[in-house]
Amino acid sequence: MDFTPSDNTLKFRKRLIAFMREHIEPIETNYHKENRRLNPDGNWRDWQVAPIIEELKVKAKEAGLWNLFLPDAKLGAGLSTLDYAPLAEVMGHSIIAPEIFNCNAPDTGNMEVLYHFGTSQQKQTWLTPLLNGEIRSVFCMTEPDVASSDATNMQASIVADGDDVVIQGRKWWSTGLGHPNAKFAIVMGLTDADAPKHQRHSMVLVPLDTPGVTIERMLPAFGEYDAPYGHGEVLFENVRVPKTNVIGALGDGFKIAQGRLGPGRIHHCMRALGAAEKALQLYMRRGQDRIAFGKPLLQLNGNLERVADMRIAIDQARLLTFYAAWKIDQVGAMKALAEISAIKVAAPNVLQKVVDEAIQLYGGAGMSQDTPLPALYAMARALRIADGPDAVHRATIAKVELAKYREA
Amino acid sequence: MDFTPSDNTLKFRKRLIAFMREHIEPIETNYHKENRRLNPDGNWRDWQVAPIIEELKVKAKEAGLWNLFLPDAKLGAGLSTLDYAPLAEVMGHSIIAPEIFNCNAPDTGNMEVLYHFGTSQQKQTWLTPLLNGEIRSVFCMTEPDVASSDATNMQASIVADGDDVVIQGRKWWSTGLGHPNAKFAIVMGLTDADAPKHQRHSMVLVPLDTPGVTIERMLPAFGEYDAPYGHGEVLFENVRVPKTNVIGALGDGFKIAQGRLGPGRIHHCMRALGAAEKALQLYMRRGQDRIAFGKPLLQLNGNLERVADMRIAIDQARLLTFYAAWKIDQVGAMKALAEISAIKVAAPNVLQKVVDEAIQLYGGAGMSQDTPLPALYAMARALRIADGPDAVHRATIAKVELAKYREA
Amino acid sequence: MDFTPSDNTLKFRKRLIAFMREHIEPIETNYHKENRRLNPDGNWRDWQVAPIIEELKVKAKEAGLWNLFLPDAKLGAGLSTLDYAPLAEVMGHSIIAPEIFNCNAPDTGNMEVLYHFGTSQQKQTWLTPLLNGEIRSVFCMTEPDVASSDATNMQASIVADGDDVVIQGRKWWSTGLGHPNAKFAIVMGLTDADAPKHQRHSMVLVPLDTPGVTIERMLPAFGEYDAPYGHGEVLFENVRVPKTNVIGALGDGFKIAQGRLGPGRIHHCMRALGAAEKALQLYMRRGQDRIAFGKPLLQLNGNLERVADMRIAIDQARLLTFYAAWKIDQVGAMKALAEISAIKVAAPNVLQKVVDEAIQLYGGAGMSQDTPLPALYAMARALRIADGPDAVHRATIAKVELAKYREA
Amino acid sequence: MDFTPSDNTLKFRKRLIAFMREHIEPIETNYHKENRRLNPDGNWRDWQVAPIIEELKVKAKEAGLWNLFLPDAKLGAGLSTLDYAPLAEVMGHSIIAPEIFNCNAPDTGNMEVLYHFGTSQQKQTWLTPLLNGEIRSVFCMTEPDVASSDATNMQASIVADGDDVVIQGRKWWSTGLGHPNAKFAIVMGLTDADAPKHQRHSMVLVPLDTPGVTIERMLPAFGEYDAPYGHGEVLFENVRVPKTNVIGALGDGFKIAQGRLGPGRIHHCMRALGAAEKALQLYMRRGQDRIAFGKPLLQLNGNLERVADMRIAIDQARLLTFYAAWKIDQVGAMKALAEISAIKVAAPNVLQKVVDEAIQLYGGAGMSQDTPLPALYAMARALRIADGPDAVHRATIAKVELAKYREA
Repeated sequence: MDFTPSDNTLKFRKRLIAFMREHIEPIETNYHKENRRLNPDGNWRDWQVAPIIEELKVKAKEAGLWNLFLPDAKLGAGLSTLDYAPLAEVMGHSIIAPEIFNCNAPDTGNMEVLYHFGTSQQKQTWLTPLLNGEIRSVFCMTEPDVASSDATNMQASIVADGDDVVIQGRKWWSTGLGHPNAKFAIVMGLTDADAPKHQRHSMVLVPLDTPGVTIERMLPAFGEYDAPYGHGEVLFENVRVPKTNVIGALGDGFKIAQGRLGPGRIHHCMRALGAAEKALQLYMRRGQDRIAFGKPLLQLNGNLERVADMRIAIDQARLLTFYAAWKIDQVGAMKALAEISAIKVAAPNVLQKVVDEAIQLYGGAGMSQDTPLPALYAMARALRIADGPDAVHRATIAKVELAKYREA
Repeated sequence: MDFTPSDNTLKFRKRLIAFMREHIEPIETNYHKENRRLNPDGNWRDWQVAPIIEELKVKAKEAGLWNLFLPDAKLGAGLSTLDYAPLAEVMGHSIIAPEIFNCNAPDTGNMEVLYHFGTSQQKQTWLTPLLNGEIRSVFCMTEPDVASSDATNMQASIVADGDDVVIQGRKWWSTGLGHPNAKFAIVMGLTDADAPKHQRHSMVLVPLDTPGVTIERMLPAFGEYDAPYGHGEVLFENVRVPKTNVIGALGDGFKIAQGRLGPGRIHHCMRALGAAEKALQLYMRRGQDRIAFGKPLLQLNGNLERVADMRIAIDQARLLTFYAAWKIDQVGAMKALAEISAIKVAAPNVLQKVVDEAIQLYGGAGMSQDTPLPALYAMARALRIADGPDAVHRATIAKVELAKYREA
Repeated sequence: MDFTPSDNTLKFRKRLIAFMREHIEPIETNYHKENRRLNPDGNWRDWQVAPIIEELKVKAKEAGLWNLFLPDAKLGAGLSTLDYAPLAEVMGHSIIAPEIFNCNAPDTGNMEVLYHFGTSQQKQTWLTPLLNGEIRSVFCMTEPDVASSDATNMQASIVADGDDVVIQGRKWWSTGLGHPNAKFAIVMGLTDADAPKHQRHSMVLVPLDTPGVTIERMLPAFGEYDAPYGHGEVLFENVRVPKTNVIGALGDGFKIAQGRLGPGRIHHCMRALGAAEKALQLYMRRGQDRIAFGKPLLQLNGNLERVADMRIAIDQARLLTFYAAWKIDQVGAMKALAEISAIKVAAPNVLQKVVDEAIQLYGGAGMSQDTPLPALYAMARALRIADGPDAVHRATIAKVELAKYREA
Repeated sequence: MDFTPSDNTLKFRKRLIAFMREHIEPIETNYHKENRRLNPDGNWRDWQVAPIIEELKVKAKEAGLWNLFLPDAKLGAGLSTLDYAPLAEVMGHSIIAPEIFNCNAPDTGNMEVLYHFGTSQQKQTWLTPLLNGEIRSVFCMTEPDVASSDATNMQASIVADGDDVVIQGRKWWSTGLGHPNAKFAIVMGLTDADAPKHQRHSMVLVPLDTPGVTIERMLPAFGEYDAPYGHGEVLFENVRVPKTNVIGALGDGFKIAQGRLGPGRIHHCMRALGAAEKALQLYMRRGQDRIAFGKPLLQLNGNLERVADMRIAIDQARLLTFYAAWKIDQVGAMKALAEISAIKVAAPNVLQKVVDEAIQLYGGAGMSQDTPLPALYAMARALRIADGPDAVHRATIAKVELAKYREA
């Protein structure tokens, strides 16, 4: 249980912070205004990427702050899950930072899947341009018509037909589907309902321009479309791709998903804690600068108590996330299920709580786009649902606890 | 402490429910789509009212479901604060209902101010068209640059100059400022910083087309602009109106504000509880209809416990609001300050909690505009800030409690 | 929904408060010391009633403050459930007050059972001396070996045998079993496991000196034996009483229990709220009188916020209890199940919360018998278990809510 | 940030667990009965130590499981704060275990003080017999008449007079004062009110048989006297001891106290978390074994969710405590103030929450001495007050956070 950051981590962390101070923080407010101007909500088909993002991506790549999430020493930075965790936290201070370092979901998860399970042809076609930041990708999992918290409900199908597989179904909340550079999706679907529970599903690579793929709309989360990414609803009707687009073999979907979700949840949680630190910093700033009844807000009521409780909550959740990351590195994600579930409950709830307090201190400004708080609230709220809702993770933890109890 | 609904209340309640079932519920989803199409966020200067709203207003007026909030038997329905409370709850089931019955904030509060404190000329000019639903109005109180929770911070000024008064300052979160029919604002500002604390401020009627009035932008709350109302930021530069536009006398602002806020908070809280009932109903529906792990969601985990806790919370807050309404009717708002503050803390927090639980059960759908939940969340979150943030109301309650303790 | 206190209630309330100020408050601290001296924990068989209690009972009876709980106008004061509620709250300010007014559990519930369901012989033998305060009684329901939250688990049996019934089984947490004046118990047990669910159980009157009745021990709740009452564990072995001791008929147990529990829960909850007011008063006192860091504790941290939250919580729970009482009076306890369950969850939790805060402000003194706080904590904690644990009541509320949803 | 347990820790942990399984768990229930028989609450002057305790102390000493808390390699086991933390957790599984391993408060803190600051004569006289477990000791800090949360309130005085110092004042909640082997107290008092804030107080060794020392009573915490230790109230009237009994110099009290409290709080918190694990284990056991409505309690309502939340809470608090321990080892307690305060808030609150849930599942049994739950509740509740109440620790955390914010 050694959470000491490696020299590599310390070095990257220092440089990330410097890069963000120099290049991201100063442009952030303007970026959001410009992005809203460029990409008004109604017309997602015309969304475009603000030029500054591409410029900063070039800078980040030149600075070697690129693909840090990928454990591979050559393609990424050779960092373990635990090594990368503090870097994900730093990136969490800004909503636009992860993409600038090519470390944003869902591309990171997709790159990991291709890295671990892709054929060399798949890697060449899809992984390389993703690693270069030239294209974006999508992960299609959640469906509108069933409770996706229970994977066995999944209705989309991926069925072999000669040299092809045929995909049918409807997916939504597929992040990145509105992005002008989004080129393909990894789609998960049911292949064989009679197979053993964890061998029923498959994952397949589907270029978004394949006939039968219809992107119907982008979904706002609390009014925010997250342009130019977007969270899309997409229909697959008789979509046919060659079998060589299947990742692993038909029936491997669940196995691949599990591997994908371990580190990905660490990333999500660490970014959430970075966001919580950002929100706490905003709380402190407002609390110090704004005066009511003759005192800075921080000196009023229980506001300093809240600071203490938020500090405790963030620090506890960070240590728990380090612990889960460390365990993934030690024994693999499959043996760290309860720990991963624990942080997936803890970290987003901490963020939601801290953001709610910060909003309260900011008053009207806290609800508007003059502060990042509504975006951080949406991030927290979505994260309590995405990648398994709280209830499913609590059930996993309880199941493991019960097993431990029975063995004891 | 008799909360028995009057015959009038029962009669109006029955008719309101019927009207909403017949005319509002069926069109609501389409209305929101149409409204978003008509009024894309970017162009508030072109906002318009969807025709269906005006049609339904005519129907509601014909049905006698009009201005029910106003205690006057002739201009309104002669209902006491307590009588009206259950009607406000019913209207809270739909976000668009209050306007259809000409019972929406801030117009109700402005009508009350004019009704109680307006000159006959002011009434004729402003109250009559408001009561007829022909125009909309705005209340300008909160300012961006100071903690408006502390009214003594207010920087906008209203100063006499000959037969005029001159208004200077900046206000924001002025609801209704984007409405095409918005004709005037009641502006609160500082007249005499050296007067006794509660005689420093004035309220003045300012037509929105007065030279010097610049509406700068509409503010989104959690991404929602609430078109065609909007929450605006407005600059008053050397704005000059005749002294006859002052409500009451210069220095009466605080006194008028207090009277305005009592019943208004009852309305807000009852609508919030109506919204909470709506959210609970959605929770039950999703919980019954959606299946995971072989069971309706309601049968999983602690979801039925949550139903019980939400039911308790809503019922308690409703009774407390009835109590505050009853007390206003008995002894006036000034002697019911602690009770009004109590519901202002209780009701919005109940709504926020219930909505949060409902979102969790709906998953992705709960964050999108496919459900009213994000709008209800924004309503709850805003209401914990508007009309005094939770902290200010808690301070009022504690102050009264301390006084009681000292007397005992 | 008229909660206006009747003239009778107002009159009795005034006199109760005066009696408590004059006779109970001044002696309370000494009473507890004396009671602990008289009745050291180890020797419950020698417990005795402190003479002051009997003296005050005489005074209370003379003052007409006697059996106020009983709806009968002749035997009691003719008060409805709602009428009595505010009086129960006043009695809740002191742990010893209820007995002094002959309004303490479980005697009140037992008197109600006898009043409503007893034969005239049973009334003469048992009810009359109870109403006179000459004897005490016990209610034997909960069993140690099964989850008593589920009444169908009950193992004790009451079986007819000729002219007798025979009782077998073990009960515990039978309050009053240690009292020197305890003469009989009402025992609930299983008569016919094959009967319809609500006709399986019976209630029978068992004199405590009947052969086969063995009181094994008194149970402390958080170290407190509540001498000279005590909460006992008792074994019934082949205990034989005549059939004339059965209350109602064999199989009527459940029906009688339901009737018993409605008003009884109102009493419990109102006393709990009285106790919460007492604890809040102690909080205020300590908060005003004790100085740290140069200020009264109340002025530090979030302590005034807590005052506000406690005030809101108490007032809400009180109104909800009035509502449940009113509903019992209107439609009977069986049709007010959800409302009764709601207060049974709400009120004890409010008390527990307020007491916990008060303990925190008192520091060490709050944990010791120098303050009533540990006794109030035990009261709250026990009440979340007794008469159905929180979970069972939440289930009832959710069940009713679900039925309402399905009908809507 | 390496929390990997050392080989020493692993070895001791294994042996501690084995010792507790073999020697402590089997006798615990009987011990408590016997202890209550031996030491009825009323007569603390006659309290005695149950022979089994002394027997087990001998066994523990022989097994080398003795004084593990002391960092000294010769007198203790040479364990760092972090090394010892997991051992304190194991000891926390049983309320009697710490003493058996000579690792119980307040003796550990007193030994640390003497070890770090004692003269060789003081060590010989007091430390050696303490390390041998031959005598017990007391720490007199808290006073009944002032808010001891604010150390500057302290009224007891320690004043030089010739070769002596004279102690005046009243202390309470002095743990161990009722122990038959208690030989001396370390008393903290005011020496010079005009000195700089942190140089006003002194600590002095006072044999309990010194003239002028009057132990007035033992205080129960939630009805529990914790015999044969007890928490006492003691009066010091003109108590005169030689200056050689002063620890360090006059005026060093605060400095010594700070050093004492760092590791001591780690011990308290880890024991609290061990107790929380014990309570969670009881929760699981009851939840599995007890059946209601046809299912084990664990399968009902939100009980499995609670398991998950308790697991998350315990694991988070443990990691935070490891972190605080690690920081003490790295930079000393004075630079780890915020971290120590954080765990002092977090751990006892986790314990209180878990115990409360366990009590609810146990019903009546959970409130009685048939389970350790009331004792664990008292432990949690007391720990939220002792060594600084939650509020003081929250203030420390907020202060450090504010300083960090200002520097950033």
